[in-house]
Amino acid sequence: MTKTNAGNFFEDFCLGQEIRHATPRTVTAGDAALYLALTGSRFLQHCSDPFASAHGLPRAPVEDLLAFHIVFGKTVPDISLNAVANLGYADGRFLGLVYPGDTLHARSEVIGLKQTSSGQTGIVWVRSRGFRQDGTLVLDYVRWVMVRKRDPKSPAPDPVTPELPRFVTPDRLVVPAGLRVSRIDPAETGSPFFFEDYEPGERIDHVDGMGVMESEHRLATRLYQNTARVHFNDHTERQGRLGACIVYGGVVISLARALSFNGLGNALHILAINAGSHVNPCRAGDTVYAWSEILQKADLPGRTDVGALRLRLVATKNRPCHDFPLKDAEGKYFQDILLDFDYWVLMPKRSVAV
Amino acid sequence: MTKTNAGNFFEDFCLGQEIRHATPRTVTAGDAALYLALTGSRFLQHCSDPFASAHGLPRAPVEDLLAFHIVFGKTVPDISLNAVANLGYADGRFLGLVYPGDTLHARSEVIGLKQTSSGQTGIVWVRSRGFRQDGTLVLDYVRWVMVRKRDPKSPAPDPVTPELPRFVTPDRLVVPAGLRVSRIDPAETGSPFFFEDYEPGERIDHVDGMGVMESEHRLATRLYQNTARVHFNDHTERQGRLGACIVYGGVVISLARALSFNGLGNALHILAINAGSHVNPCRAGDTVYAWSEILQKADLPGRTDVGALRLRLVATKNRPCHDFPLKDAEGKYFQDILLDFDYWVLMPKRSVAV
Amino acid sequence: MTKTNAGNFFEDFCLGQEIRHATPRTVTAGDAALYLALTGSRFLQHCSDPFASAHGLPRAPVEDLLAFHIVFGKTVPDISLNAVANLGYADGRFLGLVYPGDTLHARSEVIGLKQTSSGQTGIVWVRSRGFRQDGTLVLDYVRWVMVRKRDPKSPAPDPVTPELPRFVTPDRLVVPAGLRVSRIDPAETGSPFFFEDYEPGERIDHVDGMGVMESEHRLATRLYQNTARVHFNDHTERQGRLGACIVYGGVVISLARALSFNGLGNALHILAINAGSHVNPCRAGDTVYAWSEILQKADLPGRTDVGALRLRLVATKNRPCHDFPLKDAEGKYFQDILLDFDYWVLMPKRSVAV
Repeated sequence: MTKTNAGNFFEDFCLGQEIRHATPRTVTAGDAALYLALTGSRFLQHCSDPFASAHGLPRAPVEDLLAFHIVFGKTVPDISLNAVANLGYADGRFLGLVYPGDTLHARSEVIGLKQTSSGQTGIVWVRSRGFRQDGTLVLDYVRWVMVRKRDPKSPAPDPVTPELPRFVTPDRLVVPAGLRVSRIDPAETGSPFFFEDYEPGERIDHVDGMGVMESEHRLATRLYQNTARVHFNDHTERQGRLGACIVYGGVVISLARALSFNGLGNALHILAINAGSHVNPCRAGDTVYAWSEILQKADLPGRTDVGALRLRLVATKNRPCHDFPLKDAEGKYFQDILLDFDYWVLMPKRSVAV
Repeated sequence: MTKTNAGNFFEDFCLGQEIRHATPRTVTAGDAALYLALTGSRFLQHCSDPFASAHGLPRAPVEDLLAFHIVFGKTVPDISLNAVANLGYADGRFLGLVYPGDTLHARSEVIGLKQTSSGQTGIVWVRSRGFRQDGTLVLDYVRWVMVRKRDPKSPAPDPVTPELPRFVTPDRLVVPAGLRVSRIDPAETGSPFFFEDYEPGERIDHVDGMGVMESEHRLATRLYQNTARVHFNDHTERQGRLGACIVYGGVVISLARALSFNGLGNALHILAINAGSHVNPCRAGDTVYAWSEILQKADLPGRTDVGALRLRLVATKNRPCHDFPLKDAEGKYFQDILLDFDYWVLMPKRSVAV
Repeated sequence: MTKTNAGNFFEDFCLGQEIRHATPRTVTAGDAALYLALTGSRFLQHCSDPFASAHGLPRAPVEDLLAFHIVFGKTVPDISLNAVANLGYADGRFLGLVYPGDTLHARSEVIGLKQTSSGQTGIVWVRSRGFRQDGTLVLDYVRWVMVRKRDPKSPAPDPVTPELPRFVTPDRLVVPAGLRVSRIDPAETGSPFFFEDYEPGERIDHVDGMGVMESEHRLATRLYQNTARVHFNDHTERQGRLGACIVYGGVVISLARALSFNGLGNALHILAINAGSHVNPCRAGDTVYAWSEILQKADLPGRTDVGALRLRLVATKNRPCHDFPLKDAEGKYFQDILLDFDYWVLMPKRSVAV
């Protein structure tokens, strides 16, 4: 009997199944430094202890996406080791900040199952949750993946497609506990634009491009303890469809978020992930560009200091974004679109500007 | 007179010589994060403070091999700057855990010398020891290297080949101080297999492959402050035998150990290094695979919670390990074997499983 | 109206202008570990807490150049995003050590402006200063850059070229507060050479070569939050003059300083930057070599434990330095010279040797 984990196949999942994922992980200042070196992020809340303290936090929390990727990484050995594709995200909410010293663990529940028409694969929906060492929930999201069947002849389960919100409604957004934004100095944060300055429909080209190199995406993906083979095994992937390892989609999300600083520099926190598609694969050597569209603005109950902006974040490869590329005349994504991501950020209001 | 260190040549070593190595090094959470990002290791004892605390430790110690590589790196400027080959390891014991905040320093004693038949080189055996800032010994091992002579005409010393144990006998294994393994939850550690589940002769293919990229092996080797030129100087190495920089053998050991998680996930600590050969060179671009064989099982005096497994760990390049490759019909290692490593790990007994 | 920062053009600068740079940055042990992994530096003051404590410091400060690059990085979005070339440094002084936990911020003052004869660009001189969270000054230096004009037809300002000292005179050097060098053990620091052992005119070939890989220079430059596009955007730079991204000059300075350990191992701190030119561009794949010349020796007022050495540090690409290459017969730098750097280091006197 083999002692190695071959991952779960479609037949191994059943509706309502609860999965506790292995490898709780203590996050440290080392992880935060690596995340910064890997992304170039400049969001001030995450790189300055005094700035974080001035706004009610004990010190700088790690980037929201670092926490997300660590939780996501925990789920991979159980959920997506035999995945053909990561199909989507929905109803993701960031419910608590993560600080160096916190230890993250994760659980998932199977909330949907549907065999695909080919009979070779099935779609698995899971709600995954990330917790701190004390059991407090810090992250809650749904993703669905296409997973191989062990045996194409095994019977299909009753199809269950979960009902998922198209986006997280503003009343369900959670402002990080303790956060009180009192004074934002644009000279310090690097952006003079606040909640009131953005309007739905507005598009922002983030201008800069960031190349992705082989070692960089691997360092990131291993830091998240994401073990999916397609990111690391050159020997097999060079013979595969892409001829190279594929970059973990989360690396693209993080680069696009970091690029979005140029235009959205005061977007201190990510509050929710509404939806997201990895439209085309990214390979080492590609240069990532990004643009954003303001989809919606929302006041947050009881808050005069901050509001929420719902953003579409689009990342491209090797294509600048001055013309906001997305889909062709037939409604198909262009081949150089990497990511179409819908999320909420917390944005200070102009009243707190100094 | 030159002020640069040209390293020692064979003539510079004498039997019984004591060498204090330079550059004591404070290990930090930053080193641990980098080690994780460079290897993808998931052994829980080293990535979760609460898990380590639950088993009697103050917090998560750094990976045993990170401590080993740092101590090894200290010895390089004195022992192996002019080495032609790193020939072997023996009688290595891990005697204390290393925590972020500890400062490691190293000393070596020359315990063997033998000129080779060519007259161009000699073999130097050293016993190297790594210490914490308070002088407590944390690591003790023998390695031998082939070192160039400064002058081929200089006389050969009396040959002394030290007697070395073929392997560390179980009575000499040291369980980390304070470690009390009380409850191991397979859902948390990622492996349901315990001491009793492994049998001598059993072989485990660790399945996964991990590519090694140029920047990754250099970041690792510099992190260990290992200064051997063959790992860094592209200008000379591109004209050399391999046409490229050679990957530090310790990088291969670390990757193979990390890969071995898949099948040996509860192997919490390395207790000893019995033997090890870097059979063929590894270059950037190679994909490392690994397999293990259980060589021996041993109870540990006074311990009902943990036992020791003696393992052979074999790493290959660009060759999956389902057929456990090692040597050809004539007993010669295959050309795609990188490492043949013999070591002891600490493995919890089934009685502690929950 | 665009919300993205397009950087300042020559017309945007005026004499006496004060610029507060964004993104204060808390430095951590993670940054120090990454710096070590990126450079291989071995200067003991920065990698051993006990060594630093023994000399009056609370713990190991981060490398002086890590602090320099972080401060420099802060200035880039305001000063050099549209720079054609980084022309020089002068009058740079390190005025306080930076420890993990400190938060650095930066300001600059425009002290000179001069349109170039082409009319397309202008030279901007800035005095930049780095501060700790409590406002204490830790770094003060002048650099000048050639910046594009937004509109070639806009009028030239009155030319003002600041008077800058050719080098920092010894009376203006500041020994780090609290530093008391009492015992230096050459076996520990890795070098038996002290202040008295170096003579003006002496040249030291640092022997070793260090290859620079794509991921390494980017990790470093992002760690410093230096956003200059030429280091990251492969999509545009591959079509540019060099056909590849250019390595941030600070990466070359750091590598050369790390290489200089071999010959200058007791040069515990950098006290000042007198001058510096990035003579030719460095690209990934180049191997950096370095040599030093002792330019001057100076006693430091009231100090018997340490003196100051003024050094020229020259870095080359793909060219060993045994013949101390610099300029051709016509006085032009060779094409394989990367850096000509003039700086002061603090060097213990032989009286403190044990």
